[in-house]
Amino acid sequence: MQIEKILKDIVKKNDKKILLLVMDGLGGLPDPATGLTELETAKKPNLDEIARSGMCGLSVPVLPGITPGSGPAHLSLFGYDPIEHQIGRGVLEVLGIGMEMDKTDIAIRGNFATIDENRIVTDRRAGRIPTEENRKLVQILQEKIQSIRDVQIIIRTVKEHRLAILLKGRNLSPDVSENDPQKEGFPLKKVVSLKKDADFTADVLNEFLTTAERVLAGQNTKARAILLRGFSGIPAIEPFEKRYLLKPVCIASYPMYKGLAKLVGMNVIGGLETIDDEIKTLNEVYGDYDFFYLHYKKTDSAGEDGDFKRKVAAIEEFDGKISRIKHLKFDVMCLTGDHSTPSILRSHSWHPVPTAIISQNIIPDDVSSFTERACAKGMLGIINAKDIMYILLANSLKLEKFGA
Amino acid sequence: MQIEKILKDIVKKNDKKILLLVMDGLGGLPDPATGLTELETAKKPNLDEIARSGMCGLSVPVLPGITPGSGPAHLSLFGYDPIEHQIGRGVLEVLGIGMEMDKTDIAIRGNFATIDENRIVTDRRAGRIPTEENRKLVQILQEKIQSIRDVQIIIRTVKEHRLAILLKGRNLSPDVSENDPQKEGFPLKKVVSLKKDADFTADVLNEFLTTAERVLAGQNTKARAILLRGFSGIPAIEPFEKRYLLKPVCIASYPMYKGLAKLVGMNVIGGLETIDDEIKTLNEVYGDYDFFYLHYKKTDSAGEDGDFKRKVAAIEEFDGKISRIKHLKFDVMCLTGDHSTPSILRSHSWHPVPTAIISQNIIPDDVSSFTERACAKGMLGIINAKDIMYILLANSLKLEKFGA
Repeated sequence: MQIEKILKDIVKKNDKKILLLVMDGLGGLPDPATGLTELETAKKPNLDEIARSGMCGLSVPVLPGITPGSGPAHLSLFGYDPIEHQIGRGVLEVLGIGMEMDKTDIAIRGNFATIDENRIVTDRRAGRIPTEENRKLVQILQEKIQSIRDVQIIIRTVKEHRLAILLKGRNLSPDVSENDPQKEGFPLKKVVSLKKDADFTADVLNEFLTTAERVLAGQNTKARAILLRGFSGIPAIEPFEKRYLLKPVCIASYPMYKGLAKLVGMNVIGGLETIDDEIKTLNEVYGDYDFFYLHYKKTDSAGEDGDFKRKVAAIEEFDGKISRIKHLKFDVMCLTGDHSTPSILRSHSWHPVPTAIISQNIIPDDVSSFTERACAKGMLGIINAKDIMYILLANSLKLEKFGA
Repeated sequence: MQIEKILKDIVKKNDKKILLLVMDGLGGLPDPATGLTELETAKKPNLDEIARSGMCGLSVPVLPGITPGSGPAHLSLFGYDPIEHQIGRGVLEVLGIGMEMDKTDIAIRGNFATIDENRIVTDRRAGRIPTEENRKLVQILQEKIQSIRDVQIIIRTVKEHRLAILLKGRNLSPDVSENDPQKEGFPLKKVVSLKKDADFTADVLNEFLTTAERVLAGQNTKARAILLRGFSGIPAIEPFEKRYLLKPVCIASYPMYKGLAKLVGMNVIGGLETIDDEIKTLNEVYGDYDFFYLHYKKTDSAGEDGDFKRKVAAIEEFDGKISRIKHLKFDVMCLTGDHSTPSILRSHSWHPVPTAIISQNIIPDDVSSFTERACAKGMLGIINAKDIMYILLANSLKLEKFGA
């Protein structure tokens, strides 16, 4: 990002407080029956009031037309270029189930798979075994395999046939090939090193896979082997505090978002389950930080499930919580989403996301409704999500003049 | 900038004339009492008429959230990337007081400072001595120090404790360290070379500093030493005429803007004091050029002083001059600012700047008022200042088709 060439010279600390409210999967698409989006359908007087008193726009999560996963979408919101900083699939899997990860660890996504006596893969998902069966198998595997050549192997259930595996040790490398033949009817592959210094990691993984097959052979299950992919280490990301001179805190209940926040060096509050927990915490720690990232999950979950009504209800639920945030008097507040999750698409999408910024230093526009169509007419315009952070810093007077 | 990869192939000369009207620090923020910005408060029928007949938008000076100094803000308006072409602080100081600078010169910002008998800096600003005292000391220093090792030393008063110093000679380099310890209570440092070829420059500067201390020791003043910083040479910028095939002229009264125009190779008209001088000159030289940059300073000065009313008055004054510009029938006219200077912030700011373009080849939008909020709804949208130049060239039919 161009701004990285000058940020160090202009960023400064002060006592202003910034709140970033992220309603996951916020943006939607019209219900064909009514022609109205989820946001246009919801009764949300408090969100509308934020739009009315703020400056509104639409935020493009990554690039026009690009549908982001949670990782890139959040990196953008945190002011990092999500294309320059790609987070490995293994890392996201591991973060998503709440595992902690060190800089030298390698994270891997795994599948239980079915193979025949010739080690031909006959089902890459082992018949989607129940999560309970997965748990049982993982427990047995973990008992038998704790470390290989001084590399600690941590195996965890994700769900159904899916696993997360973490390697902890020295001289590990993510530059190894998958053992997955990608198609059924082909034999399991060996893991091979893709770069010189990855021979050791490949050896460890091949030994792990052979042992796992032997252990699984003794069990009554369709899971007869493990497929590995998404080998990745923690990306080198400049920590938030160093980059922005902010003391940041993440207030979220889902492991993935806590993990992403940790990746950029945020302090993460643990043990939160509900949005009420989150807002209570926000009130409690208000004095301790100057950047607050608060994450609301339900809008995305409902969208992913294709449940338009539930997404509307989730928006209304969050709307009802605003009064318990507003009295805190943040100097700068941004209400946005990480991406859109239209219920009719049942998935993340590329659509720009409604965004409102409140601060003493904005010109309030005439947008009076927090919806896709209304925000599109706001003064903030259609912006890149990765620029939002800098607009928030500017509004909190934390950026000095560039050049003379 | 991406356009630089194709500009040479498509730019062509014709007889169309472009006028760039820059109202310095144009954009503002609402007066809390009225909710209206300076532009929204001013009576400015002529500027509004430009908005009405033109295509309007907001211009982001450098990047979202970035508050630019005059240097980067103007480079953007002139179509250069202000982050790729950073202008040294010394160069801006020297240009700001109207000194001329050659390609091989090194410009330096200086402070008079107070030191004790152990050469510990006790006041980095020498008690902010009066400008008159500064002038007297500079005169004495300049008499005693005219050149060192064939390098001509030109010393000039800026104001209070501030100096500008220009080195003219061969084999000079800006890659030397400051002698400023940055904090009071620490001894003066030696200037040291930061790159191999800068040894000579460091030697010249150390000799200059020693001599200056000796000269100042004989004076009754708190100024007992000089601190140097911002060493810089003229950045390598492709001249306007070569880049755009335009014959450009700068019509401005303040040294800084004349200096910036000279940096990009504009012809600069001297001896102008007022906006009336400027407009008279514009009329006089209309036949001699095809690109006219006219700079109006008062909007920025009033904003910097936090004087909302005076900024409104400055806008109204400029509005009153438009009739003496309009009859000239420029083919393309752009009315904009280099950055915002909201009176309530008393400083430059990051806010996008109202911009209107008039040309035969635009689609007039329905913006009828030249204000921040109205322009935000214009067809030009929210654009980067550094793209404006290419839109002006296009509207004057000076850019041929790219590709077949």
